[in-house]
Amino acid sequence: MFDSSRLPHVMTAQDFAVFQEQLREQLLDAQFELAQSRQASVLTLVNGSDGAGKGEVVDRLYEWLDDHFVETLTYGPPTDEERARPRAWRYWRDMPAKGRIGVVLGSWHHHLLLGRAQRRLDRAAFADALAEINRTEEMLRREGVFLLKIWLSLDDRLARRRLDRLRESNGALRRPAVIEWSEIDRRKERERLNAAALEMIEITSTGDAPWSIVPAEDDHYRDAAVGDLLLQTLRRANNGAPASPRPPALVTTPPAAPNVSLAAALDLGRKANADDYSRELHELQRRLTEATTAKNFRARGLVVAFEGNDAAGKGGAIRRVRAALDPRRFRVHGVAAPTDEERARPYLWRFWRNIPRSGDTAIFDRSWYGRVLVERVEGFAAEEDWRRAYQEINDFERQLVDAHYCVVKLWLAITPEEQLRRFQDREKTAIKRYKITPEDWRNRDKWPLYDAAMTEMVDRTSTRHAPWTLVEANDKKFARLKVLRTILERLDA
Amino acid sequence: MFDSSRLPHVMTAQDFAVFQEQLREQLLDAQFELAQSRQASVLTLVNGSDGAGKGEVVDRLYEWLDDHFVETLTYGPPTDEERARPRAWRYWRDMPAKGRIGVVLGSWHHHLLLGRAQRRLDRAAFADALAEINRTEEMLRREGVFLLKIWLSLDDRLARRRLDRLRESNGALRRPAVIEWSEIDRRKERERLNAAALEMIEITSTGDAPWSIVPAEDDHYRDAAVGDLLLQTLRRANNGAPASPRPPALVTTPPAAPNVSLAAALDLGRKANADDYSRELHELQRRLTEATTAKNFRARGLVVAFEGNDAAGKGGAIRRVRAALDPRRFRVHGVAAPTDEERARPYLWRFWRNIPRSGDTAIFDRSWYGRVLVERVEGFAAEEDWRRAYQEINDFERQLVDAHYCVVKLWLAITPEEQLRRFQDREKTAIKRYKITPEDWRNRDKWPLYDAAMTEMVDRTSTRHAPWTLVEANDKKFARLKVLRTILERLDA
Repeated sequence: MFDSSRLPHVMTAQDFAVFQEQLREQLLDAQFELAQSRQASVLTLVNGSDGAGKGEVVDRLYEWLDDHFVETLTYGPPTDEERARPRAWRYWRDMPAKGRIGVVLGSWHHHLLLGRAQRRLDRAAFADALAEINRTEEMLRREGVFLLKIWLSLDDRLARRRLDRLRESNGALRRPAVIEWSEIDRRKERERLNAAALEMIEITSTGDAPWSIVPAEDDHYRDAAVGDLLLQTLRRANNGAPASPRPPALVTTPPAAPNVSLAAALDLGRKANADDYSRELHELQRRLTEATTAKNFRARGLVVAFEGNDAAGKGGAIRRVRAALDPRRFRVHGVAAPTDEERARPYLWRFWRNIPRSGDTAIFDRSWYGRVLVERVEGFAAEEDWRRAYQEINDFERQLVDAHYCVVKLWLAITPEEQLRRFQDREKTAIKRYKITPEDWRNRDKWPLYDAAMTEMVDRTSTRHAPWTLVEANDKKFARLKVLRTILERLDA
Repeated sequence: MFDSSRLPHVMTAQDFAVFQEQLREQLLDAQFELAQSRQASVLTLVNGSDGAGKGEVVDRLYEWLDDHFVETLTYGPPTDEERARPRAWRYWRDMPAKGRIGVVLGSWHHHLLLGRAQRRLDRAAFADALAEINRTEEMLRREGVFLLKIWLSLDDRLARRRLDRLRESNGALRRPAVIEWSEIDRRKERERLNAAALEMIEITSTGDAPWSIVPAEDDHYRDAAVGDLLLQTLRRANNGAPASPRPPALVTTPPAAPNVSLAAALDLGRKANADDYSRELHELQRRLTEATTAKNFRARGLVVAFEGNDAAGKGGAIRRVRAALDPRRFRVHGVAAPTDEERARPYLWRFWRNIPRSGDTAIFDRSWYGRVLVERVEGFAAEEDWRRAYQEINDFERQLVDAHYCVVKLWLAITPEEQLRRFQDREKTAIKRYKITPEDWRNRDKWPLYDAAMTEMVDRTSTRHAPWTLVEANDKKFARLKVLRTILERLDA
């Protein structure tokens, strides 16, 4: 085992050769175990000032590892497809599957450090952003993504000298180099960058995902240290498989508190005025068309999550919303069983990949709330996993709202009696019969469990930026009008 | 059944209502069957001049279908991520999974028609491009993608009048409209566009994927016709499941012809000069770094496919290539079993999704040639499927070359005796033991079958734009140098 405190920060070529031979075998073993078990992935974030040897470290990792299960994820200034989505989208898009190692250059810390070095970001905003990163990284860890965050540390003068040596007399690079901070060329800014980096390392070194500062004066020492840190991370990943998946354990009793039912408090008898319905529906749809084709909507985007009791009329309501939208600029996502590519990644990945580009609309028929509804009630998620989901979902939605998306969450509520009537109707009507399955009948028996889960969900995730709206849906017409009206109100807000 | 010749091109509201009621039930049934069996997908291409009602047709389809299994694929001018890849990449990226219906606006025919209307494309180039489209569409069909290609036809004067009616007095659109030909505003150009469309329809109306010209004067008639065409296409898709997957049928005898072995004709005894090896290797790597970081490489890209006998040294050769590349700008793809998202799409999709952006390099350790090697020998693909793959692969590679990628294909050949020695060595060496499986031993027994498959493959896919290079690999050093030298030569060519 490598112990940073016991070793000098210099390593002879001979020591390195001996160390390397042993390390490589251990790394390959650990990597093979990771690839075989597919329970976790490892993201190695290689950061540091230019000239500290980021490119050389990445090269070395490829030399040691089996390159079939490694991928480099590099981020520079965002492309236009990236700019059209929330900032975190591109990191989610590239998330390696379980069993794989990602090497990240230009990680999510980069733009924050740059903002700090250039004094565009004040201390409070910097700290806020780092706190959010901490929460995201904790979530990743619990979803089986192990982070190794490396900061290659090198004296500014030495780093400059190294960069100079990399360049031919005509300024061309002698070999590929990872130049990430080209915007920063004054000494003063570089000092501020290093100071910001130290501050960041302090704030975002959590127990689950600590930063490792690696002295980078000596190539051998630097590479050996990184290699050993990666080995430790791989071993942690192989031992500490993520909480889920677990053998499902049916939750048989509703949780004790909160002992209230939100749905029961609704007046489900509310009805639309049948005479005015058509006119009102068309007027609301016209306004929705106007709002979603207006010029200022192009910098926004609309994400609507439909949840509710089975047969509450989500499909019919979605059709009325959809009919008002530009057919090129929306997509309806029915949330079904995850694919294997989705199962191999953190839970929220399958929703991140479907976040529309700005100006577009995504309608989710059932959503990320499945985690705290069906997965909770059916025992598909362990209690500790669905419990942490409330905060994770709130973070997720705030990232959308921060990127100017309008997030609308609708719960369509009906009474058990009305549901029974609709189930029976579905079985009789040709056009609807594929909408009813034995599963639906089984779920009816768990009504109180779903009711409790829904109540807690609304309590915990009705945030200021993305509140829940409960829709009384025994009368379909009333529900449809309320759905449209809610979306319009939220777009105006 | 709808019969275009028997019906007038106008339909009363009453007839439409009756027709619609019946159609909708049939459409939902057919769509449900498609979604359940997951054997095929349907792409509905909605084309036509502006004002002919493309948006209204798409709207109507959403009204009739279950929108959970429908997605709109819209293409305008390419984004920067799209421009950085071959033209076809964006259509491959969006390919719906089997079981789903895609509605395509701005399909792959669009830029050709535009080029013709603006006289940027001569007749010969137009015909060539259409011939290529025909081959691609035939391939899609055989891979389970059923195409419905619709051209909404409307007299130019009527179309203009409709567009005018869509606009408010201030020029704003009254509702979302699909304006695809805004570059074309002179009457002359519009006439040329319609003429080019007719020509295209003639050339690309194949038996498998005919165009349907739908008269669009009357909304009811137009929508009914499209709905009926879609129903017919869905039924074809449900009946005529694609050729593969089939129950695997082991090919037990090598095919009669060609009765030669390319590998046997190689002088596998060739050796590198051990004294010069290191120096030569580094010099070749230096030149590769230079070539792949040169400014002109940014508009190109490098795709290298490694094939060869098991244990021929692909991994080691790849490491020597990889070491010369910018760690941010390559990816090594080990081709393993397809994921379920990959299995749900045409065979080449998993390779298209990994085509690098221009300026980058993708190294495939085993490749799309698996179709005519392992899938052929092990009977995973039916004979008619791997037979058509030669042409499909040639088309695929030409699309890469046309987009300025350099495509290098390397076959690393060793003798059966050398393979045996290496297998035994792998079992003994700790660092290599995960590279050998019982599968490898079984494959050795099929040496003559693989040999025959390889010979035919090289014969049929060694094209001028993407030739095969056979690498004598009994001596690893010789092989590595030849691999590097070949890539450099191809980059220079």
